[in-house]
Amino acid sequence: MSENLSLPRGFSFAGIPCGIKADGAVDLALIFSDTPAVAAAVFTQNRYAAAPVQYDRILLEVNPAGVHAVIINSGNANAVTGPAGLANARRMAEAVERIFGLQPWSALVMSTGVIGVQLPIQRIEAAMPAVFGALQADEAGFAAAARAIMTTDTRPKTASIQVQIGDAAITIAGMSKGSGMIHPNMATMLGALVTDARLTPEAAQLAIQQAADASFNRISVDGDTSTNDTAALLANGAAGGPLIAPDTPEFDAFARALTDVSILLAQAIVRDGEGATKFVTIQVSGLADDAAAHQVAQAIATSPLVKTAIYGGDANWGRILAAAGYSGADFEPGAAELWITGGAQADAYLPRLHLLSQGMPLAYDEAAATERFAQPELLIELRLGDGPGRDVMWTCDLSHEYVTINGEYRT
Amino acid sequence: MSENLSLPRGFSFAGIPCGIKADGAVDLALIFSDTPAVAAAVFTQNRYAAAPVQYDRILLEVNPAGVHAVIINSGNANAVTGPAGLANARRMAEAVERIFGLQPWSALVMSTGVIGVQLPIQRIEAAMPAVFGALQADEAGFAAAARAIMTTDTRPKTASIQVQIGDAAITIAGMSKGSGMIHPNMATMLGALVTDARLTPEAAQLAIQQAADASFNRISVDGDTSTNDTAALLANGAAGGPLIAPDTPEFDAFARALTDVSILLAQAIVRDGEGATKFVTIQVSGLADDAAAHQVAQAIATSPLVKTAIYGGDANWGRILAAAGYSGADFEPGAAELWITGGAQADAYLPRLHLLSQGMPLAYDEAAATERFAQPELLIELRLGDGPGRDVMWTCDLSHEYVTINGEYRT
Repeated sequence: MSENLSLPRGFSFAGIPCGIKADGAVDLALIFSDTPAVAAAVFTQNRYAAAPVQYDRILLEVNPAGVHAVIINSGNANAVTGPAGLANARRMAEAVERIFGLQPWSALVMSTGVIGVQLPIQRIEAAMPAVFGALQADEAGFAAAARAIMTTDTRPKTASIQVQIGDAAITIAGMSKGSGMIHPNMATMLGALVTDARLTPEAAQLAIQQAADASFNRISVDGDTSTNDTAALLANGAAGGPLIAPDTPEFDAFARALTDVSILLAQAIVRDGEGATKFVTIQVSGLADDAAAHQVAQAIATSPLVKTAIYGGDANWGRILAAAGYSGADFEPGAAELWITGGAQADAYLPRLHLLSQGMPLAYDEAAATERFAQPELLIELRLGDGPGRDVMWTCDLSHEYVTINGEYRT
Repeated sequence: MSENLSLPRGFSFAGIPCGIKADGAVDLALIFSDTPAVAAAVFTQNRYAAAPVQYDRILLEVNPAGVHAVIINSGNANAVTGPAGLANARRMAEAVERIFGLQPWSALVMSTGVIGVQLPIQRIEAAMPAVFGALQADEAGFAAAARAIMTTDTRPKTASIQVQIGDAAITIAGMSKGSGMIHPNMATMLGALVTDARLTPEAAQLAIQQAADASFNRISVDGDTSTNDTAALLANGAAGGPLIAPDTPEFDAFARALTDVSILLAQAIVRDGEGATKFVTIQVSGLADDAAAHQVAQAIATSPLVKTAIYGGDANWGRILAAAGYSGADFEPGAAELWITGGAQADAYLPRLHLLSQGMPLAYDEAAATERFAQPELLIELRLGDGPGRDVMWTCDLSHEYVTINGEYRT
């Protein structure tokens, strides 16, 4: 995606190595806004929220309209590190504030990597002049930052969009990192989004919540939720135009664009999921409400039996139906309609195949079903009645490689 | 376990091939009580309850005190088979009733195997004289029946117990089958328990519910719940003694014994889980109530990241803590105490190792932790406060072999 990247005005970016990762790879990213930006974020619901998550939650209470920077390290999650970890998250922010001469509470902090080990904060502090010097307002800077937040991601993930809102041409750009596994840890999802739109803090928070709900909260690699998951938005208003508040037509246009970028970033995480060989879209409809549809979609997206069948290229509709059946959602089993299709990419799917009707298997062509399940992208559509509730989830298969990556001894 | 098996009086058993399994293996089991028995059962909560589950639910409403037989086939689950499937489940029961000259509603029915394919009911009907002729009241008959309910189980699973209740020496024996994967299907858990205790229908139902809740509902191979899961109890009273009703001291003694047998059968399912290389016990305590403790234990037991780490022999406590953190249970993260141990078997564990205290990692010996995670049996103890809530789950690891078994193309 990065070949066509547009960047919002007034931001610069850097990614450098600071010595947290043992192999010397880039592990420190900085995003900087020339002017104070409105900031908003959504965080993990895990009770073991990492120190940077706890720090950022406070920052967004104290100073949501005066944020200049996001500082992100990879290689160490600063999670399960107690009071010392919280002090280190704060020192990480203060190092940024000091070098730019900013007020306190001006920098968001994110970390990803090993948990239960104290952050080598001196290395980050010592690297501040270098990361400051590396800031660039161009694509190269953005790409370097996107690379510096990777853990076991095999490639950086970036996306951007330009949209006209009123008389302003605004740009939204974002980077994400996904399922990475390092010494000891878990998969962490980070997303950092920047825009030159003018937003109130309330609009920024509502927009990132809506966007995350339709994107980062609709993906599953293995169902595990990390201690560090964060998606943050910085809006510096450099594009001018009307001030966007909730309940305005401009808000809807902005939120839609932010959602589009977030979906691209979220899908990129699934495509690069640990050991993933297939990208799977699960569409569920016909339930009483969206929440019930989500229960069904989530059960299918996280079922090891469904995911191994997809890995094996097996059109095993029984497992899909069984996952719907144990999801806890309320529906009439006899109403199930199931279609599958697949292809090399979303705009080149094979004709859709109808596998089940009124809850019973149809006499479909097994070879045609297998052909679809053998595609790199797969679409599963399950309708469970006539209700208005619908949901979509994106997931990947469960492969031998996933077990290898996550079963490997840490040292 | 079968070498020390005791069998209750008044029952006979058979297991024969009837031609449902393509390879000609035994696939039809019959359990018969000479006198009418009280019957009780617990069933899958899956919305796609298979035809035999639907049939048995009705039978237990109509005739819970006059059941003579349990007929079980493997190789075909009779699930997602619509009205024809329900008719076939009934024909399966009627075939038993006809050959023994029994009243209607005298036979429970269970099926496990491929779903979405109609049961070849004629083969079962044609096999009735053979299975009738094969009935034996001894261990050989019991073993044959236990083998006939297997799908991809690698070994039959049986257990028994003898207990004195009042002036009666009563026996409980059971067989189970677990995670089997065949053309197309899912893992199904079946348990059939027989006893010569004298029970009221209410006592039988309460006892099987309590026993299943402490055993079959405390295991997880991959978190998927099948369409056919059933645990049934037949109590024919042949041992005499007092009639056991709920709220009597005799009931508690009986329920405890039934629970003990059920736990052995449930643990045997996990030990023979698809691709399992390790048996894992997860004990959670200190929560506000047992339900919260169960949420935590279940999140740990079904986390792919925890299960692959155990497969890899990696003492990855971060994943255990993270699973607790996203379980949805309410607890104070800073209260976590974590111990692990392991050994060749439960009565030969290594000294317990304390990994976390007050939510923070201790400076434990990494080699000692790895030694414990390398054992075939592993015990994880997590305490999350001072509350009275506790739970235990038994699970296995997630291996390459699991992916191979479940990713293989069906044909």
